Amino acid sequence: MGLVNHVFSEDSLKKLYVSNLGIGHTRYSTSGVSVLDNCQPFVVETLHGKIAVAHNGELTNAPRLRRKLMRHGVGLSTSSDSELITQLLAFTPPLEQDDSPDWVARIKNLMNETPTSYSLLIMHKDIIYAVRDPYGNRPLCIGCLVPVGDINSKGKRNAETEGWVVSSESCSFLSIGAEYYREVMPGEIVKISRYDVQTLDIVPRPAGDPSAFCIFEYVYFARPDSIFEGQMVYSVRRRCGQQLAIEAPVEADLVSTVPESATPAALGYAQKCGLPYIEVLCKNRYVGRTFIQPNMRLRQLGVAKKFGVLSDNFKGKRIVLIDDSIVRGNTVSPIIKLLRESGAKEVHIRVASPPIKFPCYMGINIPTKEELIANKPEFHNLASHIGADSVVYLSVEGLVSSVQESIKARQDNENNLKTNKFRTGKIGHCIACLVGKYPVELEW
Amino acid sequence: MGLVNHVFSEDSLKKLYVSNLGIGHTRYSTSGVSVLDNCQPFVVETLHGKIAVAHNGELTNAPRLRRKLMRHGVGLSTSSDSELITQLLAFTPPLEQDDSPDWVARIKNLMNETPTSYSLLIMHKDIIYAVRDPYGNRPLCIGCLVPVGDINSKGKRNAETEGWVVSSESCSFLSIGAEYYREVMPGEIVKISRYDVQTLDIVPRPAGDPSAFCIFEYVYFARPDSIFEGQMVYSVRRRCGQQLAIEAPVEADLVSTVPESATPAALGYAQKCGLPYIEVLCKNRYVGRTFIQPNMRLRQLGVAKKFGVLSDNFKGKRIVLIDDSIVRGNTVSPIIKLLRESGAKEVHIRVASPPIKFPCYMGINIPTKEELIANKPEFHNLASHIGADSVVYLSVEGLVSSVQESIKARQDNENNLKTNKFRTGKIGHCIACLVGKYPVELEW
Amino acid sequence: MGLVNHVFSEDSLKKLYVSNLGIGHTRYSTSGVSVLDNCQPFVVETLHGKIAVAHNGELTNAPRLRRKLMRHGVGLSTSSDSELITQLLAFTPPLEQDDSPDWVARIKNLMNETPTSYSLLIMHKDIIYAVRDPYGNRPLCIGCLVPVGDINSKGKRNAETEGWVVSSESCSFLSIGAEYYREVMPGEIVKISRYDVQTLDIVPRPAGDPSAFCIFEYVYFARPDSIFEGQMVYSVRRRCGQQLAIEAPVEADLVSTVPESATPAALGYAQKCGLPYIEVLCKNRYVGRTFIQPNMRLRQLGVAKKFGVLSDNFKGKRIVLIDDSIVRGNTVSPIIKLLRESGAKEVHIRVASPPIKFPCYMGINIPTKEELIANKPEFHNLASHIGADSVVYLSVEGLVSSVQESIKARQDNENNLKTNKFRTGKIGHCIACLVGKYPVELEW
Amino acid sequence: MGLVNHVFSEDSLKKLYVSNLGIGHTRYSTSGVSVLDNCQPFVVETLHGKIAVAHNGELTNAPRLRRKLMRHGVGLSTSSDSELITQLLAFTPPLEQDDSPDWVARIKNLMNETPTSYSLLIMHKDIIYAVRDPYGNRPLCIGCLVPVGDINSKGKRNAETEGWVVSSESCSFLSIGAEYYREVMPGEIVKISRYDVQTLDIVPRPAGDPSAFCIFEYVYFARPDSIFEGQMVYSVRRRCGQQLAIEAPVEADLVSTVPESATPAALGYAQKCGLPYIEVLCKNRYVGRTFIQPNMRLRQLGVAKKFGVLSDNFKGKRIVLIDDSIVRGNTVSPIIKLLRESGAKEVHIRVASPPIKFPCYMGINIPTKEELIANKPEFHNLASHIGADSVVYLSVEGLVSSVQESIKARQDNENNLKTNKFRTGKIGHCIACLVGKYPVELEW
Repeated sequence: MGLVNHVFSEDSLKKLYVSNLGIGHTRYSTSGVSVLDNCQPFVVETLHGKIAVAHNGELTNAPRLRRKLMRHGVGLSTSSDSELITQLLAFTPPLEQDDSPDWVARIKNLMNETPTSYSLLIMHKDIIYAVRDPYGNRPLCIGCLVPVGDINSKGKRNAETEGWVVSSESCSFLSIGAEYYREVMPGEIVKISRYDVQTLDIVPRPAGDPSAFCIFEYVYFARPDSIFEGQMVYSVRRRCGQQLAIEAPVEADLVSTVPESATPAALGYAQKCGLPYIEVLCKNRYVGRTFIQPNMRLRQLGVAKKFGVLSDNFKGKRIVLIDDSIVRGNTVSPIIKLLRESGAKEVHIRVASPPIKFPCYMGINIPTKEELIANKPEFHNLASHIGADSVVYLSVEGLVSSVQESIKARQDNENNLKTNKFRTGKIGHCIACLVGKYPVELEW
Repeated sequence: MGLVNHVFSEDSLKKLYVSNLGIGHTRYSTSGVSVLDNCQPFVVETLHGKIAVAHNGELTNAPRLRRKLMRHGVGLSTSSDSELITQLLAFTPPLEQDDSPDWVARIKNLMNETPTSYSLLIMHKDIIYAVRDPYGNRPLCIGCLVPVGDINSKGKRNAETEGWVVSSESCSFLSIGAEYYREVMPGEIVKISRYDVQTLDIVPRPAGDPSAFCIFEYVYFARPDSIFEGQMVYSVRRRCGQQLAIEAPVEADLVSTVPESATPAALGYAQKCGLPYIEVLCKNRYVGRTFIQPNMRLRQLGVAKKFGVLSDNFKGKRIVLIDDSIVRGNTVSPIIKLLRESGAKEVHIRVASPPIKFPCYMGINIPTKEELIANKPEFHNLASHIGADSVVYLSVEGLVSSVQESIKARQDNENNLKTNKFRTGKIGHCIACLVGKYPVELEW
Repeated sequence: MGLVNHVFSEDSLKKLYVSNLGIGHTRYSTSGVSVLDNCQPFVVETLHGKIAVAHNGELTNAPRLRRKLMRHGVGLSTSSDSELITQLLAFTPPLEQDDSPDWVARIKNLMNETPTSYSLLIMHKDIIYAVRDPYGNRPLCIGCLVPVGDINSKGKRNAETEGWVVSSESCSFLSIGAEYYREVMPGEIVKISRYDVQTLDIVPRPAGDPSAFCIFEYVYFARPDSIFEGQMVYSVRRRCGQQLAIEAPVEADLVSTVPESATPAALGYAQKCGLPYIEVLCKNRYVGRTFIQPNMRLRQLGVAKKFGVLSDNFKGKRIVLIDDSIVRGNTVSPIIKLLRESGAKEVHIRVASPPIKFPCYMGINIPTKEELIANKPEFHNLASHIGADSVVYLSVEGLVSSVQESIKARQDNENNLKTNKFRTGKIGHCIACLVGKYPVELEW
Repeated sequence: MGLVNHVFSEDSLKKLYVSNLGIGHTRYSTSGVSVLDNCQPFVVETLHGKIAVAHNGELTNAPRLRRKLMRHGVGLSTSSDSELITQLLAFTPPLEQDDSPDWVARIKNLMNETPTSYSLLIMHKDIIYAVRDPYGNRPLCIGCLVPVGDINSKGKRNAETEGWVVSSESCSFLSIGAEYYREVMPGEIVKISRYDVQTLDIVPRPAGDPSAFCIFEYVYFARPDSIFEGQMVYSVRRRCGQQLAIEAPVEADLVSTVPESATPAALGYAQKCGLPYIEVLCKNRYVGRTFIQPNMRLRQLGVAKKFGVLSDNFKGKRIVLIDDSIVRGNTVSPIIKLLRESGAKEVHIRVASPPIKFPCYMGINIPTKEELIANKPEFHNLASHIGADSVVYLSVEGLVSSVQESIKARQDNENNLKTNKFRTGKIGHCIACLVGKYPVELEW
C-alpha cells in the first residue's frame, strides 16, 4: 500500500530474484478504503494449486456477484474486487472431466459473469494469463525484455528475447530495459509462458456495442509517453490544445501551462494560435502529485505548496493559462489569485477537456457528484467564481475527435491492408463521466 | 505476530475502546509457518454479516477438510486452520428456513466435521460463541469482570458484573481485574451476550471415549497459577516432584531447580525426601523464554545466556537437579557442565515428566521425532551423554496419577452430591506424545 | 537526515507549536559523511545559556580552526563545521565586563576568524541572529509572515506582520504564506526579535575584494522562482540560453530541454534562434532528483529510470538539446542514445553553463577532480564520446554577463538614486569551480 | 537508549566484528532525562586523536565542573556527566612536553577534580583505560576471555587467554564465555592493551576516609550471581534474611518471597527460623522488571500485572512474606491485598533492608524524598497503612554486618598472609540513602 518507490524497496525485490515469473500491483484506492487487506495480488489455494490475481478496474456488478458467492457459502475476507474475481475463478463449477484444470474455460466463465471493467493478470504455476475485459475499459499492454548488459539497445522479438512484461502503461517498459510489443485487445485472453505469448481466445462484446477504453487516461491519468491504441498520449493532449485554440481563442500576450500535465496542451494551443509559450509557474519538486493523495485535507495542503511563481515572466501581461481538467475547482482558483497578486493583467483559463459531471464506477477515483464543480450552482458563473477573466472547456466532440482522429486514420489504413486480425467491432471510448451514459448497465 | 507485549501496544488497544466486545489471538507457530497471513482472528463477510474466528488448536483432519472445501470451489488464502474453520462455518449448507442464520446448527455441523483439537471464539454481531472440542484437548475458561475502580475487590456473578472474558488460561484474569468463573466443558457451546452466559448445547464424544485434555499443559506449557479441571497447575507440578522423590530417590546434599518452571517440582521433591532446597542457578532476567523462539539457532544461543551460577551455594556438594522435562537434551547438558566447573561434586538429574517420544498433531510445537532425545541412540546411555551422575524420568503412571488424583477425588465427591451437570463421560488426558496413542485417528 | 518531506513530518512539527521561534536545517552532505552526528542545528549550553546554530556553507579554514580549538582543550564530538562554529562562539574569550553576553562581539570575532563560507542562524533565548559571511558566498534572505486565514493575501511589513522567516532561498516563502522582504547582505549581522528586524553591523571584506556569491546557485542549484541579488533565477537561466544561442547556433528542426532544470535556457535558446520549442523527453515523476542522492550507484540507476521518451515528437528530426550543465557526463550520454534509438536524425548538445573543472571547498558537493568530465582526456573529443553530433558549452564570460547584466543595470540606477545603503564594495561572483581562482586563500 | 536486548541487535553488533577492542554502555536514566543525546560512549576528537568514554555513576560536583568548563569557553552539547568527563580529559592543561599525550596524567588530573562517583572506560587508539573512583562507589571488574570453541571450559590467565573484558557486574562474563579475573580497586587506573592488563596508578582517598561501595548494589540492584569485594551477592542477601530472622521473628505457618529478588533472603529467613519455604506468588514472565521503567504510570500498571497468585498453597495459612526493600510502598500493599483475598489468614512483612530515607546523588535512581514511604507520616503506622499484620525492616547495623562480615574475615586472613597489595585503607560502604551521611561533601 503506497507509492511504488516506497513499497518495492531494493531489499524486498531482491527476494524475488530466485524466480523467473511474478506479478505485482499498486494502485490508489478506488472502491472501498485503502487497507492492507485489499492489497494485491490476491492469492488462494485451489484444488488445482495456488493462483494469484492482480486486477485493475472495478466490476460494474460486484455487489450482485458478492451476494452470489456468499449465497454459495464462500466467506469473503476483504472488500476488494480482486478477491471476488479470485474466488469466482476458484468457484467456477468444475467443467473439467479429469483432474487437470481448464483455466481458459474458467476465465471465460468469469468474463461471462461480468462484462467490465477489468484488466487481469492471473498466475498459475509457470503460466501468466493476461486478460482484458471485452470493452477494453482499462489498459493492458505487453513488452519484451531485451538482453541485459545493453539495456538501451533494441531487442528483437525472437530467440534473443529474454522475457516478457505486462503492464497497464507502456511507459514503464523503458525503465527496465524492455520495449513495447503490443496491447492486449479488448476481450483477449493471452497466455504467457517461458516459450511464447499466445492468444487463447477473444471474448466478444454484445453485438453493436463499441469498445470503451477510458478517455480519462488520455486526458489526465496516463503518463504522456505511454501508448494506447497506437498513439502517444502526449500527441492526443497536444491535439486537444490545438482543438481548444480553434474552439476558444483569446486575445492575450502569452500562453502558459499549469505544470506539468497541461504542458502538451499548452504548447499545442500556443502553436495553433501563434502566441508565445512562456512559463508562469514552476513546480515545487519536493511535493508529490496531488491526485494520488487519498484524502481531502492533504490535497488542499498539497495545492498550496505545489507551485513557485515566476513573476518576472508575466508582470503586466495577459495570460492564457491551459489546465488539463477542472474537477473540483479547488486548484485553479488559488493559482489565478497567485498570478494576479504577482502582476498578471488578465488570466484566461482554457481547459483541455470537457467538464466532468458524473461518477465513475469503473475504477477511476472521481469525486462524488456533489464535489464536482460542474454540478454546482457556481458553474454557471465559473469565471467570476474562480477569479478568471474567462474560462472555456474543450467540447466533448472536440475531445473525442482529438482522441479518435489518428485511430480512425490508421484503422482505415489497416482495413485496407487487412492486417489487423484482432481489433474487431466498432471503436469507441468511455465518456460516461462527461455525458452520464455508461458502456454497460450498472448492477447493485 | 509476536509477543503480546510487543503486538498489543497501548495505542493499538486504545482504538478498541469504542466497542463493548471483541476477540484477539496470539500464538507461537504450530502448523505451518509464522506468517502474517496466518494471524488471527480470521474475519470474513458471509451472507449473514461478518464473522470473526479465533482458534487455539490444530485440526486432526485439516488436510481432508481443506480438500473438501476446495473441491466445492472455495479458494483458501492462508494455510491456517483458522481460515478453514471460518470457511466451514460460512460454507455449511444453509439449514435456515428463512433469512436468519442458525449459528448453533452451523457450529454443531462444524463439530461433527472435525472432532479435535480446537477451542474457538466466534464473534457475530453482538454475540460471542465460546466452543471447546468434544475431547476438551485445548483449554478454555470464562472469567467475569468486576467493576473498575477497585480492580482487586471480589466481583459477584450477578447484576454487578461488568462483563465477561474468555481465555485459554485463567492466570490472565487477575491482570485485568477479572475473576475465574468456570471452564468451558468439552463439547460445550457457550453463548456470551450482553445479558448472560448460556450453555447452548454439549456435543458428546463417541461412546466410551474419555476426554483428552493435553497433559503437557500441566507439565510445562501453562503458567503455574492457572486452574484446569479444578486444580492449580502449581499443585500438580509439586505432586509430580513428590512422586518423583518416591520413584527415584538419591543420596545427596541438596535439591535444586532449573529455574523457574521446575521450581514447584523441586520444592515437592525436597520436601518429600527431606533434603534442603538450595538455589544453584539464577535466571538472567534480560533474556526471554526459550520455548517461544521459533528457530533452533536462537534457542541454542538463548540457553547459553539464560542462567547465572550461584557457585558459593554448592561448591563441593552433591546436587539433585530437578528439571521439568528433557525434550531435545540441549539445555541440560551445558547446565551440568556449568555446575561441575563451578564446583559441584555430583549432579543427579531428576525429570518431573516422562520422556517425550512422539509428535503432537494437536497444537503443541513439539520437535520432530528425530530431534527428540528419547528417540536417539544416546538415550540408552543418557546420564553419561549429558554428563550427569544419574538421570531418571518420572513414569507415565506417576504423571497421570499426579494429574488425576485430585480430579478423581473431587469427582467422587461431586457424584455423591450430584452437582456437576456438565462433566459427563470418563475423564482422561492426552498422553499421545508420551505413548503414541492419539485420542482420535489422524486423517491426511 | 534526509529529505524535508520525510524528516519533518506533521507529527514532529506539531511538538514545536508551543514555541514562537525556532531554527531548523536540512542539507545534503558536503564536508564529511552524511551521519546523524552532523545533523543541525548544533546546540550547546554555554555560560550564558543555550545557543543553537544552523549553518549553510563550508569554512575554508576549518582544519586550522579545529586544531586551534583542540589545542585549547576543546574536544570536538562531530566532524561538522556547525559544531566548530558553535564552539568558536562559546569559546571566544569573554569580552564582557559583566555577566551579560555580548553576542555581537562574539559573532564579529567569529567572522574575523573565518572569512567564508557561511550563512548562519544563531538562536539564543528569544533572539535569532542571521549572519552572512563578508563574501556573501551562500545565500540567505528574510521573509515576513502575513496573517494566517488568508495565506495568499499580500502582507504588509508593519504592525500587521505576524512574524519573520529566514531561508536560504526565497522560493520557500510562498509555501508557508510568507512574502519576500530582502536579502541578508554580505557581512551583515541581523538581529530578529519579536519586535523588529535590525541590522547590528556589517563586517567588511578586505579592501578591493569583490563579493563572491556562488554562481552555481544560478546555474543549477537554486529553484527557478528564487530571487538572488534582485533577480529571478529563471530569468538568469533564460538569458544564459539566449547567450548560448548567440555563441553557438546550429542548423536544426527543433530546440528541446533535458527536463526540467534546463527548460528556461531551452526556451531562451529557441526564442533567440527562432526554432520551435518541442518536448522530446518527459520526466518520470515517480523518481527523485538525481543530484541529491549521495552515492554513485543510485545516481546511475536514477538516470536510467528518470525519463520517458516522446518519440512521435521528433522522429526524423534534428534536435538541439539544451542541458544546464555537464558535470560527469554520465547522464547526457544515455539520453542521446535513447533519442537516436527512438528516431532522432541529429542530436546537438548545447550546455547553458561552462565546464566545471575545479573542486568546490565552500559548500557545494562537486565530484572530485578526477570524476569531472572536463578534466578527462575524452573532453577533447566530447561530442563523439557522448555520441552527439556536436556539443558546445556556454563561455565563462557569457555566464558572468548573463548573471551580472541586470544587477549592474540596477546598481547603476541605485547609485544614481543613492538608495542602497547596504550593498557596499564591488559586486563579483565565485566562479572558482570554473576557473580555479578561489575568493580567499584555502587553509589546511 | 533502552534494554540491551533491543538496542544491541545481532545486526548492529556484526558491524563491530572487524575491530579487536571496543566499549559500550547501557543504563537507566539517573541524572537528567533519558534522551538520545545522553547516550554513551561519548566520543570526541582531541589534539591527540579520538577518545571515547563510558561512565557509570554521577559526579557529586558536576554543576561546579560544568560551570568551570563553560567559563573556559567550552560549550556542552548534552546534560550528561559523560560529556563533562570527556571534555575534562580533553581540556586538561597540556602537561606534555612534546606532542605525545600523557593520558595517565590527564586521568589523574580528572580524579583530582572530582572524588566520586565514577567507574570509567576510556578508549584511545589501541588502549582501554579502566578507572574506578577513589571511593569505589560504583562497581567495575575485569574478566578474561577463554578460547572460543569451548565456551564453557576454564580459561587460563596466560598465553591462552584470548582477550579481556571489563564490566560493572561479573555476572555478564558467563554469557560470553569469559571468566572473572578481579575487581578494579578503588582509585585504580588499569591499562588494558593487546598484551596485558597493568595497574598504572592508584589514586588514594583523603586520609581516614573509608571506601564507599554502594550498599544498594547488594540489597537490590546487582544480579545475585555477581561478585563484589570477594563475595557473591546472593550470599549477602541470604545473610540479610538470616539476620532478619534473628532481629524480627514471627509465629507463622510459612515463609515466602516476593519473587524473585527477595528469594535468597526468604530462603535464609526460613532456614534460620525453621519454618517451611512455600511459594505464594509466581512471576508473570511476560512483563518486564518494574524498577527499570522510567515513569510512574508504567510502574503502577506493571505492579498490577506482575504476579500470579498460588492460592492453593496458602489458603487459611499465616504467611511471613520477605521483601527485599520497601521504597515507595506502592508494590507491597496490593500484594498483601491479593494474598488476603485469596485466603491468607495473616500476612507479616519482613523487609531484608533498612528503610530508604535520603536521595542518592551518586548514580542510583532513588525517588524524591517526598515519594519515599519512610519520610511519610504513614510510616509510623506502616503495617496498617499497607494492610499487613506486622512489618519490620532489617536494621542498618544488621545490613552492614551482613555485608561486611565475610569481607572482614577474608581481609584479616589476607592481612595475615600479606597477599593483598591493592586493597589499602579502611573498608566502608555508602549507606547515605539510609542514614543521610554522604561519603564526600556535595557541591552545586
